Amino acid sequence: MAQKMKAAIFIEPERIILGEKPVPEIGPLDALIRVTLTTICGTDVHILKGEYPVAAGLTIGHEPVGIIEKLGSAVQGYHEGQRVVAGAITPSGTSYACLAGLHSQCGGAHGHGWKPMGGWRFGNTIDGAQAEYLLVPDAMANLAPVPDGLTDEQVLMCPDILSTGIGGAEAGKVKIGDTVAIFAQGPIGLCATIGARMMGATSIIAVDALPERLEIAQRMGADHLVDIGKVDPVDEIRRITGGRGVDVAIEALGRQATFEAALRVLRPGGTLSSLGVYSEDLRIPLDAFAAGLGDHRIVTTLCPGGKERMRRLMEVIGSGRADTTSLVTQRFGLDDIETAYELFAHQRDGVLKVAIRP
Amino acid sequence: MAQKMKAAIFIEPERIILGEKPVPEIGPLDALIRVTLTTICGTDVHILKGEYPVAAGLTIGHEPVGIIEKLGSAVQGYHEGQRVVAGAITPSGTSYACLAGLHSQCGGAHGHGWKPMGGWRFGNTIDGAQAEYLLVPDAMANLAPVPDGLTDEQVLMCPDILSTGIGGAEAGKVKIGDTVAIFAQGPIGLCATIGARMMGATSIIAVDALPERLEIAQRMGADHLVDIGKVDPVDEIRRITGGRGVDVAIEALGRQATFEAALRVLRPGGTLSSLGVYSEDLRIPLDAFAAGLGDHRIVTTLCPGGKERMRRLMEVIGSGRADTTSLVTQRFGLDDIETAYELFAHQRDGVLKVAIRP
Amino acid sequence: MAQKMKAAIFIEPERIILGEKPVPEIGPLDALIRVTLTTICGTDVHILKGEYPVAAGLTIGHEPVGIIEKLGSAVQGYHEGQRVVAGAITPSGTSYACLAGLHSQCGGAHGHGWKPMGGWRFGNTIDGAQAEYLLVPDAMANLAPVPDGLTDEQVLMCPDILSTGIGGAEAGKVKIGDTVAIFAQGPIGLCATIGARMMGATSIIAVDALPERLEIAQRMGADHLVDIGKVDPVDEIRRITGGRGVDVAIEALGRQATFEAALRVLRPGGTLSSLGVYSEDLRIPLDAFAAGLGDHRIVTTLCPGGKERMRRLMEVIGSGRADTTSLVTQRFGLDDIETAYELFAHQRDGVLKVAIRP
Amino acid sequence: MAQKMKAAIFIEPERIILGEKPVPEIGPLDALIRVTLTTICGTDVHILKGEYPVAAGLTIGHEPVGIIEKLGSAVQGYHEGQRVVAGAITPSGTSYACLAGLHSQCGGAHGHGWKPMGGWRFGNTIDGAQAEYLLVPDAMANLAPVPDGLTDEQVLMCPDILSTGIGGAEAGKVKIGDTVAIFAQGPIGLCATIGARMMGATSIIAVDALPERLEIAQRMGADHLVDIGKVDPVDEIRRITGGRGVDVAIEALGRQATFEAALRVLRPGGTLSSLGVYSEDLRIPLDAFAAGLGDHRIVTTLCPGGKERMRRLMEVIGSGRADTTSLVTQRFGLDDIETAYELFAHQRDGVLKVAIRP
Repeated sequence: MAQKMKAAIFIEPERIILGEKPVPEIGPLDALIRVTLTTICGTDVHILKGEYPVAAGLTIGHEPVGIIEKLGSAVQGYHEGQRVVAGAITPSGTSYACLAGLHSQCGGAHGHGWKPMGGWRFGNTIDGAQAEYLLVPDAMANLAPVPDGLTDEQVLMCPDILSTGIGGAEAGKVKIGDTVAIFAQGPIGLCATIGARMMGATSIIAVDALPERLEIAQRMGADHLVDIGKVDPVDEIRRITGGRGVDVAIEALGRQATFEAALRVLRPGGTLSSLGVYSEDLRIPLDAFAAGLGDHRIVTTLCPGGKERMRRLMEVIGSGRADTTSLVTQRFGLDDIETAYELFAHQRDGVLKVAIRP
Repeated sequence: MAQKMKAAIFIEPERIILGEKPVPEIGPLDALIRVTLTTICGTDVHILKGEYPVAAGLTIGHEPVGIIEKLGSAVQGYHEGQRVVAGAITPSGTSYACLAGLHSQCGGAHGHGWKPMGGWRFGNTIDGAQAEYLLVPDAMANLAPVPDGLTDEQVLMCPDILSTGIGGAEAGKVKIGDTVAIFAQGPIGLCATIGARMMGATSIIAVDALPERLEIAQRMGADHLVDIGKVDPVDEIRRITGGRGVDVAIEALGRQATFEAALRVLRPGGTLSSLGVYSEDLRIPLDAFAAGLGDHRIVTTLCPGGKERMRRLMEVIGSGRADTTSLVTQRFGLDDIETAYELFAHQRDGVLKVAIRP
Repeated sequence: MAQKMKAAIFIEPERIILGEKPVPEIGPLDALIRVTLTTICGTDVHILKGEYPVAAGLTIGHEPVGIIEKLGSAVQGYHEGQRVVAGAITPSGTSYACLAGLHSQCGGAHGHGWKPMGGWRFGNTIDGAQAEYLLVPDAMANLAPVPDGLTDEQVLMCPDILSTGIGGAEAGKVKIGDTVAIFAQGPIGLCATIGARMMGATSIIAVDALPERLEIAQRMGADHLVDIGKVDPVDEIRRITGGRGVDVAIEALGRQATFEAALRVLRPGGTLSSLGVYSEDLRIPLDAFAAGLGDHRIVTTLCPGGKERMRRLMEVIGSGRADTTSLVTQRFGLDDIETAYELFAHQRDGVLKVAIRP
Repeated sequence: MAQKMKAAIFIEPERIILGEKPVPEIGPLDALIRVTLTTICGTDVHILKGEYPVAAGLTIGHEPVGIIEKLGSAVQGYHEGQRVVAGAITPSGTSYACLAGLHSQCGGAHGHGWKPMGGWRFGNTIDGAQAEYLLVPDAMANLAPVPDGLTDEQVLMCPDILSTGIGGAEAGKVKIGDTVAIFAQGPIGLCATIGARMMGATSIIAVDALPERLEIAQRMGADHLVDIGKVDPVDEIRRITGGRGVDVAIEALGRQATFEAALRVLRPGGTLSSLGVYSEDLRIPLDAFAAGLGDHRIVTTLCPGGKERMRRLMEVIGSGRADTTSLVTQRFGLDDIETAYELFAHQRDGVLKVAIRP
């Protein structure tokens, strides 16, 4: 009889519960991880609300830190008991997309070579990380040993938030001396601010409606704070840049308003780097787009994953270049995850990220 | 008393006439060109129809081939009587944008460094090429000597059509082995087809409603022809690519329908390279955009200009890699330019491009 | 008792023999291929001569076309009897290097993440393709199904020669309108000529000492032929380019003389793309290097591998963009491979590539 | 009779004297600058020693801060009395090279389009900045207004040292999470350290023989200090990186020993970014180069110039991201420049950079 474990299970819209499931059986390429720390993502709230559909009965969560419990028969280069992190996106490494360097859109060994969002499996197409145990597919491509000096909480943002946020700055190709505006300073936007700073932007404009988030943005490296409760962000950014516009605008919310504002503040030839998960069609205003003649770029990024990405992000943390521990505002045991969802979904008590300890 | 010359002058919407104007006086950085061949662009038709506003009294046209008549006092490296071509876009070379390598959005020596479409001056912000004489600003950055072996008609597409079309393939970063779909096979789309072929695409899908244009597309290098009068282009391209989608889609018309179709046929991680001049807001369908998670890129390109660009494009022609003379379907004297506009604006007689000889 | 097969085995310098070996036993991630066609590479001759050391007893060869005989227990997405090609370089897909997109320097699941030339395993660190059967490691990353319309001989150059040659043009970032010189027109150089042509070079200068190879280069797309038996290549290329130099120079021989000449003909800011396997220290002449102030780039490329690369190269062949069958100048059975080595190593009878059919 | 001014004039090897010259007459595209602060570069010492040849009688120096005294008749967008900086490299903006984005190798309006080091004119092919007045050619491309809040000394390193050093990190394409080794921590190397830090390197290894320079390197952002008087740098860097090697190695001295060590510590696929001015042929050891199969890149960079570059670097200074004032270790009047050369050429008194105030 299979061993049982606790897990946060999606039942139906507005209902994620703590339930019981068998501990996963692993195949030759997988690893079984005993989860020691995980968290809840804004995407999980989309799932909770029924805005992003997943199968009933699925375990939610895609941000695991844990200990290797068991290795698949074909997995080499790791040992049981090793402390590891795995990215939210778990590419196979062997799909056509992966071999083309586009790991996030991994198509697996089958099919046409690419699959939209194919690399996102945890809590989407397979059981996720908000559980006592987690099956990590294609373990050799995805398990990244955590360096000894780093705590679980220090690396907890690497699987998704930090990877995505920094990915937004990277996709925007931020250069030394750039002016960068980041729309929304939730966890992703704050990490995009970190990314812009790390890549050499010399004027970083953080935009949000919450003064306390703008304050954190300042600590993360923002030079200018734009409180949209007080000023029109497009006007204000034009003023800050002396009418010139920004080199790169990063959208980190997933709404028409921020997407559009990000486009409006771009200088000709600038890049809109979009990180948000949208829930409706987007509109590109003709004037903001210079009728298609502005040499603009709009790029989107799905959280980069894989063990090399995790290794690099842990270098970022380990070197002291960034510290994401202040993003953890509340801590819960797995037993209290329903309370954690309640708090997080309603953005109560100034929550940024919660840490969930099974 | 200033010498007079004939010129195609914008009077008001629906009215471009052949009128008389003084031959331009040049400043120290300018050159005066005696135009020997020019053409009409789709953009000129936008101007004619009042869809793109320019000042009343402006000479239209931005595609000159000619002979240097006179050089500004500070211009070096050229001589009178030299046969030259100048791009539709005439960057100063000395603006902040130019020095950043973004010549099309040239901001001049003044201002904030960048100006949307700032490099497009001929027939937009200064008098244009559909005239007997043309003032070329910042001559040293813009005059490209025509190699002896090439006729005026051979290089006539270099200033705009060929530069823009090839620019669409370049901005799409077409790679060897790519599948590329090009939406619309007017002059720009045909040149984008040339560009995709020259960059190594191995499956080129040309889309248009006119069988005769698809036929030319095939001669320019297209492998698959999609007649939208007969099939749904999105379905057909999915079929051609075995469900995989294209690596790069080039939009060469400037309409919502083509923009949207181009997005729908992209594989995850693909690039939509947009060349069209749009006349209304664009809509990005949520599903085609994978909710912002598809690692898609949307890039726009304004016709690259400057003498180095012209030199390279004339190499393309001179080497025999591309032949754009077949795009010239009718020829007129400057005296008959109103007739030419009539024909071109209504797309009569299978017109692709007209050659206008002053 | 293990089944036996014939194989070309390295015994000691100057001695590769046809011997007998057990058919390989495969592990869970491997595939066993029945080789239907293979060839001999210049690198194999280096091994034969003892210039590149491999273990005694190793089966040589890294260019397989074949039929899947057996699949490892963890391999999905393929079936026995499928006709496939595998690259000379067989990355795991799951190493740190692979996940960083640098598949050729694959470090495996172990170690420091990168291994110099780590992706080159066939006939180097594991048994190779000049045999009746071949173990393909990390099969899911490396087996590329051959499209029905293509013969074995049509795809025979994909695993190495075509991938390397085209890779040289890609690493050189050849652009539309570029002038490119390719030093040496052996099989690799000829494929680099193909690559330069496919990427849009408009002036391709092929350099070699053998008129018959220059003739083939012309068929592959070269515009200028430089016979180093008749002219000094540096002087001649300066003459051809009007003193300007080339944008990209590709070295395809592996000698100081060609490396140095390639550097000397570069324009400022040009790129030397090196493909050769060198056997001694290289010298960079101070003047050719502009004392380090010429914005030059020197890049080296190890043959790109993996199934996505193979898929793309077969698209190149299938689309008719390139035809490498004319490179096969002689054909042998595996039984006659010693004769084939004799011929190929001494470059007799105008040999370019031999086809070996087990 | 022309007004006279003081200037540091190259007479012959080992002899640069303070002499008198006419204040330059300017042409239509030039500007005359009253120099308010300048400095001496290592390259000037090469000139002094006769290692880099310039014409007898030339004014030396290429790092000017000053006030616009007079503008050429065709210069627009500036006014007399404006405080400006000009880069060491002064591209025309209108050459073929400039229009291709390769401003440092500017070929002027004439000739073949490119000229090795053509952008370097001050103190090389025209009179330089160690004088009371300076003619700035192609003023519109080169004059960058200094923001009010910045002192002359704060921006003094922008024209060369900071632009070159940061350029070395940029050419190396340093990425977030990279390990970067910088060989030699003179002014250029220190600025390369700043650049590596600004681009997101998380492990920066500074190499030098002088402990006091290593100390400054640490303040500039280095994580590891390698004193070549105490350890072998190749062994030590292998140890620091756990045998893995560095992603990017920056050479900032111009010697075989540092070039070779930089190559030896590269991981496969790594980049050697070379900034040094070499004075003899370089040798590439076969093993360090993996026989040409390591996917290595060697790139060289001449100091990027032009007003957009200066604007960006002043943003770097103005934002507080970097402070180069500590590099100024001694200050002299122009009258004492011979003493300053004496001190600087012999690297006395811990000199890094001297400030020269005319």
